[in-house]
Amino acid sequence: MARDFEDHCWKDIVDEEILEIYQPYRREVRVGRKPAVLAIDLYNKAYQGGNRPVREVNRLHEGSCGENAWKALEPTRALLAAARKAGLPVIYTTRHADTDGVRSTNRRMGKEAEELYHIKEELTPLPGELVIYKERASCFFGTPLIAHLQQLRINSLIICGESTSGCVRASTVDAYSYGFHNTLVEECTYDRAMINHKINLFDLHHKYADVMHIEEVLAHLDGLARERKVA
Amino acid sequence: MARDFEDHCWKDIVDEEILEIYQPYRREVRVGRKPAVLAIDLYNKAYQGGNRPVREVNRLHEGSCGENAWKALEPTRALLAAARKAGLPVIYTTRHADTDGVRSTNRRMGKEAEELYHIKEELTPLPGELVIYKERASCFFGTPLIAHLQQLRINSLIICGESTSGCVRASTVDAYSYGFHNTLVEECTYDRAMINHKINLFDLHHKYADVMHIEEVLAHLDGLARERKVA
Amino acid sequence: MARDFEDHCWKDIVDEEILEIYQPYRREVRVGRKPAVLAIDLYNKAYQGGNRPVREVNRLHEGSCGENAWKALEPTRALLAAARKAGLPVIYTTRHADTDGVRSTNRRMGKEAEELYHIKEELTPLPGELVIYKERASCFFGTPLIAHLQQLRINSLIICGESTSGCVRASTVDAYSYGFHNTLVEECTYDRAMINHKINLFDLHHKYADVMHIEEVLAHLDGLARERKVA
Amino acid sequence: MARDFEDHCWKDIVDEEILEIYQPYRREVRVGRKPAVLAIDLYNKAYQGGNRPVREVNRLHEGSCGENAWKALEPTRALLAAARKAGLPVIYTTRHADTDGVRSTNRRMGKEAEELYHIKEELTPLPGELVIYKERASCFFGTPLIAHLQQLRINSLIICGESTSGCVRASTVDAYSYGFHNTLVEECTYDRAMINHKINLFDLHHKYADVMHIEEVLAHLDGLARERKVA
Repeated sequence: MARDFEDHCWKDIVDEEILEIYQPYRREVRVGRKPAVLAIDLYNKAYQGGNRPVREVNRLHEGSCGENAWKALEPTRALLAAARKAGLPVIYTTRHADTDGVRSTNRRMGKEAEELYHIKEELTPLPGELVIYKERASCFFGTPLIAHLQQLRINSLIICGESTSGCVRASTVDAYSYGFHNTLVEECTYDRAMINHKINLFDLHHKYADVMHIEEVLAHLDGLARERKVA
Repeated sequence: MARDFEDHCWKDIVDEEILEIYQPYRREVRVGRKPAVLAIDLYNKAYQGGNRPVREVNRLHEGSCGENAWKALEPTRALLAAARKAGLPVIYTTRHADTDGVRSTNRRMGKEAEELYHIKEELTPLPGELVIYKERASCFFGTPLIAHLQQLRINSLIICGESTSGCVRASTVDAYSYGFHNTLVEECTYDRAMINHKINLFDLHHKYADVMHIEEVLAHLDGLARERKVA
Repeated sequence: MARDFEDHCWKDIVDEEILEIYQPYRREVRVGRKPAVLAIDLYNKAYQGGNRPVREVNRLHEGSCGENAWKALEPTRALLAAARKAGLPVIYTTRHADTDGVRSTNRRMGKEAEELYHIKEELTPLPGELVIYKERASCFFGTPLIAHLQQLRINSLIICGESTSGCVRASTVDAYSYGFHNTLVEECTYDRAMINHKINLFDLHHKYADVMHIEEVLAHLDGLARERKVA
Repeated sequence: MARDFEDHCWKDIVDEEILEIYQPYRREVRVGRKPAVLAIDLYNKAYQGGNRPVREVNRLHEGSCGENAWKALEPTRALLAAARKAGLPVIYTTRHADTDGVRSTNRRMGKEAEELYHIKEELTPLPGELVIYKERASCFFGTPLIAHLQQLRINSLIICGESTSGCVRASTVDAYSYGFHNTLVEECTYDRAMINHKINLFDLHHKYADVMHIEEVLAHLDGLARERKVA
């Protein structure tokens, strides 16, 4: 049975007044037609310091999402596997360490190792899967992503990765502007601070994407995989 | 004396753990060089139902920001006046009521009157000021704004308007991506729900813009006006 | 029987040496899948002064394409009719007379009447057909066209209009960059100077579009109309 | 003394009728303020086969511009040296050999060596100079070039490279759309077929750029270098 439109992680901080104001956005959520998976910034840097509280890991590894990243690892692995089984393209984004002084946000950063921006081994792209290198928060800005999506005849996106309040938000807003139907997988999306994660997910759900749970998306992908086998 | 980097409306909901994680974003805030004012969606629709609680006005006037919009009216009027006195271009954004089925967010809307999207009379553009008509949340998407800014040799933006979690956020993220230094005037920016307003302002301040108070920005513009008089 | 890849208006000015150099671009031309018609700048200004030599009409009506425009009128009318019969979206572009000093090219122009940029009556859009207002040569630059095409799930374009060396070229290059398959209808595309028309059509044919003859495109559209009737 | 507006390589193929039609585009040409040099696709592939006729070298080295490329080598070297002496940023473009099936034009190509897309040794970027990797004809499409130009506060471009009818044209049209004043250096711009080179240069000169001769541009850059020395 489908879960309620507001049955999401933001329940504990969004009150009844807000829900009334946002009532006109209620609608049935779904995965769109001709989807691709967009896996945003699943790079080593987000996992640095291990499966521990964000505050702790950030003391040594600035930018790490700590336990929030690690918690999303298994659902994300499952999402990618199901998508491939269903024949969906999987598109990754990351960046280069050195981009001539251009930064995706206002964070102060020293010199970094390129290895920090390699995709985490457990989630690594298969040969032939597209990796988009970006210099800004949105994976559409300053990249040929829209041209690849158009050439692949993709009409909707299943989005996961990090951070909810940074690259995921910016990329999802742009995808909506370009005319894609977007599904955001809650359990595969993460950030450092929980209140920012929750409010950004709330904003995205009401305005630019259908935030769905991993079991709903996996069920849909299994259906696509079965159809594909028959065909 | 300059106020602290975190002395803003989000103080009451952002705890000490978050402030520690976001410590690397601390920096001196400022208005950039060669600025223009970007006044986002200051149209009648946001003021409908009058200076009353958002929840109440939204029952009859969906999308109104109620008292939040009205509270920003006087500071915004002052900001526009000071900018013009300093010789800065003021650029407005709005939309047309009917855009062939394209919507800026997922809200369900019926037919609307074009008058709802006229700029509020007290803030109306002067003859010759640029008005950008957009179909999406960001005023850069699907509009010639970047070309006008480049032709005007503008290098930074002073941003105000609504909503913080919608068009202001999307536009500011894009402005940052394009390489502009952004100043967001806290008292001239508003939304319907306060928690979304605060968290979006927090995100923007740390990642994409310098959120400043109206008195700081007015002082800067007065300085520019004086220099201009001398020159 | 299909005409040869080089059987086009440029035959008389492109010599054997050039054809040898461009041999690697030879391929079968076609109309793509899920097409829309893109009708570029079919506005009154191009027809001013009537069906007379370009040089003559330009003395009084700068920017008119004279007899070149009038010659394309009947094939263009036929193209639009066939496209509608086949259920294809028809998308028009034009501009506003006054765009705050922004110009699509370096031509010096005085104040102009808005009526000059209305679509020619014989080719006028049907109610509900999309009209894109642009400020630059390419109808993708500074407009939401790509979002509309994505929302309509369009994967290829049938392009006509003017001028070959200006807006048609810029728009077709952008369409190719975005990943669309483009068909350009030779008899429905025109310019003022013939050598520029021919060389631009040659460039577009080899690099960015399939230049086809009106009878080939009409035959294809008739086929689509028949399939549609059956379905 | 300044040369006439039409004193360029296209003189022998553009007749008096065309010049009359294009008379309204006549204007004083110049290098713009705050310029950067944009060096388009000066990669090894264009020089393959050596300083011989294009037709000959293309038999073994598809895409080579042969003697046209080699003739531009010395003026281009001089242009880059003068620009650096004047303190101007020099920005290069090139591409990667393998871009997942995305092609900048419709040419059929087999597997290529990455080395073909390295910048020619005599013109190689200095350490720290920006190199933009593109997948399409225009160096603005799908790249962060506009953000770099905005961050560098660049307001005009001095453009050179190849090919006139491909990447140079597409990039210059986009630069004009973005609001840059463009200067194209005739002797440093080249193509394979001369008629396409000339007509494209004619189009660009009248609509989107000031085509200037190398000695005019070098004189301007020498002036900038002297001013810089004094300051």
